[in-house]
Amino acid sequence: MGRPVTLDAHVGVATLRGRMQERGAEAYLSLDPDSQTYLTGFRALTYSRPLILFVTATSSVLIVPELEEKHSKLLAQVDDVLAYCERPDGRTPVSHATLLASLLEQLPAGARVAVEAQRLPLVYADAVRSSGREVLAFDDVLRRMRAIKRKDELAAIRVAGELAQVGVAASIDAACLGMGEMDIDAAGGAAIHRRAAELGSEIMIDLLAITPSGARRSTLPHAFSTLRQLAPGDMVIHSRQVAVEGYRAELERTLVVGEPTPEQEHAFAVMQDAQQAAMDATRPGVAMRDVDAAAREIIAAAGYGAHAIHRTGHGIGIGVHEQPFLRFDNAETLEPGMVVTIEPGFYVPGLGGFRHSDTLAVTETGSELLTEYPRSLDALTLA
Amino acid sequence: MGRPVTLDAHVGVATLRGRMQERGAEAYLSLDPDSQTYLTGFRALTYSRPLILFVTATSSVLIVPELEEKHSKLLAQVDDVLAYCERPDGRTPVSHATLLASLLEQLPAGARVAVEAQRLPLVYADAVRSSGREVLAFDDVLRRMRAIKRKDELAAIRVAGELAQVGVAASIDAACLGMGEMDIDAAGGAAIHRRAAELGSEIMIDLLAITPSGARRSTLPHAFSTLRQLAPGDMVIHSRQVAVEGYRAELERTLVVGEPTPEQEHAFAVMQDAQQAAMDATRPGVAMRDVDAAAREIIAAAGYGAHAIHRTGHGIGIGVHEQPFLRFDNAETLEPGMVVTIEPGFYVPGLGGFRHSDTLAVTETGSELLTEYPRSLDALTLA
Repeated sequence: MGRPVTLDAHVGVATLRGRMQERGAEAYLSLDPDSQTYLTGFRALTYSRPLILFVTATSSVLIVPELEEKHSKLLAQVDDVLAYCERPDGRTPVSHATLLASLLEQLPAGARVAVEAQRLPLVYADAVRSSGREVLAFDDVLRRMRAIKRKDELAAIRVAGELAQVGVAASIDAACLGMGEMDIDAAGGAAIHRRAAELGSEIMIDLLAITPSGARRSTLPHAFSTLRQLAPGDMVIHSRQVAVEGYRAELERTLVVGEPTPEQEHAFAVMQDAQQAAMDATRPGVAMRDVDAAAREIIAAAGYGAHAIHRTGHGIGIGVHEQPFLRFDNAETLEPGMVVTIEPGFYVPGLGGFRHSDTLAVTETGSELLTEYPRSLDALTLA
Repeated sequence: MGRPVTLDAHVGVATLRGRMQERGAEAYLSLDPDSQTYLTGFRALTYSRPLILFVTATSSVLIVPELEEKHSKLLAQVDDVLAYCERPDGRTPVSHATLLASLLEQLPAGARVAVEAQRLPLVYADAVRSSGREVLAFDDVLRRMRAIKRKDELAAIRVAGELAQVGVAASIDAACLGMGEMDIDAAGGAAIHRRAAELGSEIMIDLLAITPSGARRSTLPHAFSTLRQLAPGDMVIHSRQVAVEGYRAELERTLVVGEPTPEQEHAFAVMQDAQQAAMDATRPGVAMRDVDAAAREIIAAAGYGAHAIHRTGHGIGIGVHEQPFLRFDNAETLEPGMVVTIEPGFYVPGLGGFRHSDTLAVTETGSELLTEYPRSLDALTLA
């Protein structure tokens, strides 16, 4: 049994070191759980105790609280784990800051330390600067590296996509008049557990689902699920993400409770056409903004343009959302190895929200659909 | 129906403004979801799109992506919501950075902007500094404010504690030989949904549970649940947090699968005594380190001191963990209104992990237990 996917996080570290050398950075410093997962294959539950990843040309070190020492030594692909302690008879030091300071001191004075400025809390940048070293923004490097998935990353996302399908199918099978949003989510979660258990006894999965329902709540794209119960005439957006070994896929379907009205039918058809157009446009060499435009043109022609208040999709991987963003002002182009969601949506006051989402991998010649579930109104009408 | 607790987030803002005036800060800037929840009563699902809270002496503004505009106007206790857009025909501006820059420009040159340096991403501190304003660390202010709960915060945590009890009871009732860790978590989740639905149709709850099982996994204090199935002789730590309107309570119990061995019995009794001693020590005026010591002395006397690798407890509220920390080197004292977990634990290689956790509110004269569930080995042995 064990785990169905093996991550080659060390390949990411090797690439990172190449970029560090190109830009004259002596070290890379990260507090970000996503980047740490990417570069070590290990994700901890980090609450109040920081984990710090510190990579130089010759070593990679993870600073962890002692209660994560054994866990990280088991799972993290790093050269060394340094633990800080919170017991009186413990080994010193008792602070992550002391350990970080000792690593910084080993760098030459004036050395550049690469960081993600969008992520790194100010206090750590201040620690670097007050040690007489410099901070160098490396956001673009990590963004670029993470946007193009390796084969092992793709393998994990593929499994995540299969599990997302299992979950969405079970949630929609269970959904009915009077059922609460969170219970719809839970039905899918239970089915994912059953399927995942067949894949490996210690497979690492993480579940995320929201199901805003009703004319009002379904127009809130990111509303948390509540205990609200499905009512006749509801529009419902069921959204499911599954992570496998930290890598995510997303699958979302819009549902109607009971016989759809002509307005619901019309908006649903527009949404479905827009998603299909954007999926058809998803292939290497196409600009992100053109994928967005493919969906927006259809939505705007139907008169819903002002309600299409978000981009058509986003990269997905370790991040719930990550680069690249399929946004109207993004001129970058799709490349093989990128994994994106395609999810044009619009939200009509008094009528409801309309959005399907699928996860696609960009291939050498087009795209591969990593999630599959019926998209038609017939299939998505709850009796 | 609706929601069972009303939060007075504006009271927090008033207090914050008093501190700003004392320290000569013209504004407060936060990207942190926890602090934003504390000061606005609103929590968004923030993935890639930043939400920015900006408070001055006379106004409070939340910068949000357009897809959260309606949601935040419904729920956030702020004077103004400014939205940034990601559609070509949208209102300008398209960037949160532009909106933040315009707010900074309204401050006098050289003005101090209060931030939480432990939380604020570097890029926003750089934005403040490059605008000709200064950054002022305000971590201690927010930490102190959040540590002492108002009555409305306590009311939310009290409901969270009741739901945590419902969940732990259902999970332990369901747990049996052969059941997977995640399914144990799910059983409690379903019961919490049922109970929460009775409290209010749009009650906002958030669930967190982990159940590391077996001699190896139960020694990893923060291991995510897997599909591993309970086996004879397992030590199991079932950990449950519930948030109500953003405010959390925690309840954890250690279980044994099948007839306990003498070693398991002994360690369990030591753990139970240590927790009781720490709970008994929890009252106003007692130093945090003395609560920690009350538990540690018992654990050390039994020979498990080197395995007690974490503090005895932590503050809880909006944060999964937050100040104050009941740690061996913390001389601060408990005060009425603080809410803490009491959870001394130790993790013995080859034997397993031992930890109960309960949530207590410090009162004027002692403490109030906000979670309750049997603690004895008899009650926690799975047949």
